[in-house]
Amino acid sequence: MKRIAIIGLGIIGGSICAALTKAGYAVDGTDIDEKTVTYALNKGYICGKAEDISDYDVVFVATPPRATINILDTYSFKDGAIVCDICGVKQAIERVVYSKSRAYKYVGLHPMAGKETSGITSASAELFAMANLVIVLADKTDASAVKEIKGDAKAMRFGKIVECTAEEHDKKIALTSQLAHVVSNAYVKSPQVADCDGFTGGSFQDMTRIAGVDEGIWTELYFHNREYLLAELNGLIANLEAYKIALEKEDENAMKETLKEGRLLRENIKFKRK
Amino acid sequence: MKRIAIIGLGIIGGSICAALTKAGYAVDGTDIDEKTVTYALNKGYICGKAEDISDYDVVFVATPPRATINILDTYSFKDGAIVCDICGVKQAIERVVYSKSRAYKYVGLHPMAGKETSGITSASAELFAMANLVIVLADKTDASAVKEIKGDAKAMRFGKIVECTAEEHDKKIALTSQLAHVVSNAYVKSPQVADCDGFTGGSFQDMTRIAGVDEGIWTELYFHNREYLLAELNGLIANLEAYKIALEKEDENAMKETLKEGRLLRENIKFKRK
Repeated sequence: MKRIAIIGLGIIGGSICAALTKAGYAVDGTDIDEKTVTYALNKGYICGKAEDISDYDVVFVATPPRATINILDTYSFKDGAIVCDICGVKQAIERVVYSKSRAYKYVGLHPMAGKETSGITSASAELFAMANLVIVLADKTDASAVKEIKGDAKAMRFGKIVECTAEEHDKKIALTSQLAHVVSNAYVKSPQVADCDGFTGGSFQDMTRIAGVDEGIWTELYFHNREYLLAELNGLIANLEAYKIALEKEDENAMKETLKEGRLLRENIKFKRK
Repeated sequence: MKRIAIIGLGIIGGSICAALTKAGYAVDGTDIDEKTVTYALNKGYICGKAEDISDYDVVFVATPPRATINILDTYSFKDGAIVCDICGVKQAIERVVYSKSRAYKYVGLHPMAGKETSGITSASAELFAMANLVIVLADKTDASAVKEIKGDAKAMRFGKIVECTAEEHDKKIALTSQLAHVVSNAYVKSPQVADCDGFTGGSFQDMTRIAGVDEGIWTELYFHNREYLLAELNGLIANLEAYKIALEKEDENAMKETLKEGRLLRENIKFKRK
């Protein structure tokens, strides 16, 4: 039976452990925080602490971007091991991984799942159920490794699995994840936000849910994807100007057309809520 | 037993019918669309069609803003009847209602509940469960009418009920509802949006859920609250500029501080998800 380890037991790493364990796998885990390892052991998310990473056939690295890059670049993985990361940016990871030959087989993953909270206490065996998973492929990607990881992903109950290049991933994620976190974080800066208890509904809750980002991790993610995010942010600001101008000019027809354009685009998005 | 009618059987009016019926009330309803009335009858949301509005002791007007203003201004309600509207703007309504003496007692309501879909088929007896309800008070508001409507609101299972002036309502709603609909509608205008199937998670889904607004109704709402919405929209654009500048200047510390500011504000918002 293949030996599996997870490095970094935050919400994503902890949920990988929990989901694989629930599916019948035996997995080990490790974290820089000993209490986190103890929590994962007590919860039954892991069988034991992963001590020597070169013992494992499959390793999921589930740490922030810079730590991930360091681990992928310097750790002594087993020859032929499959090593996956779960980072929200991929070109920066590939640049390091493919900068020299590696004894391990790298497969880049981005589980499109998360919560507005973080850490092992937010982990859950159900986090990935029906969620999208992006697998990032390069010329050097080992096809059999991808096949094996897809099997593991199905065990974790991911829904749709899509494959693309790191560039395509980073470009799309600038819109579907990074910009959303910027907007939510900006949204709560209205001077009124402190006094709106009782005046909110689902729209406000959705808009502000992810505002409380970990500024350290997200700054890393944004700066590893600076140009794509900047393009999306500039695009959004330009689009918001159209509503502003319609209001300033008291042009109801322009507002109606601007809203209609968005409605028609929205109707073409496949919308799936877990 | 008091006689209750609902005018306009969309998602809100239909849900008022359904919730009151479920609570044991007998209510009648009417709509400009006969098929909608038939649907409400078949679903058991209403006992009958409301034919003569002057027969009713309590009337909920649940139509778009301009129709609501027309109804409140011109219909012949019963002397002493309580008449409520559910519009998302309140100063515009009060200006008309209080422009002359009325035989009815007006109570302005704004249920902070909705869905990304509309119409009677989206109505539900549970729509208001745990939702916030804003009751708008003016000098002329009848206190006993407010007390009675609060009882009805509890029967509909609203959660928190807050009271304020029309001005306060309109100002806060510009942030908590109107701006959210603008942002969501603008968000889907990225050129990438058509190709992001499989690359989305909860953040994107939350951000784009309400993008498909009815441009007719929302243009009315926005132009009845133009100045407050414009202030919020200008504020958001200005706040988004800070992230943009941090990215442009490659200033990671500025980004970190900008994100941290939002995180701290977010942590002070009471967050309740149904």
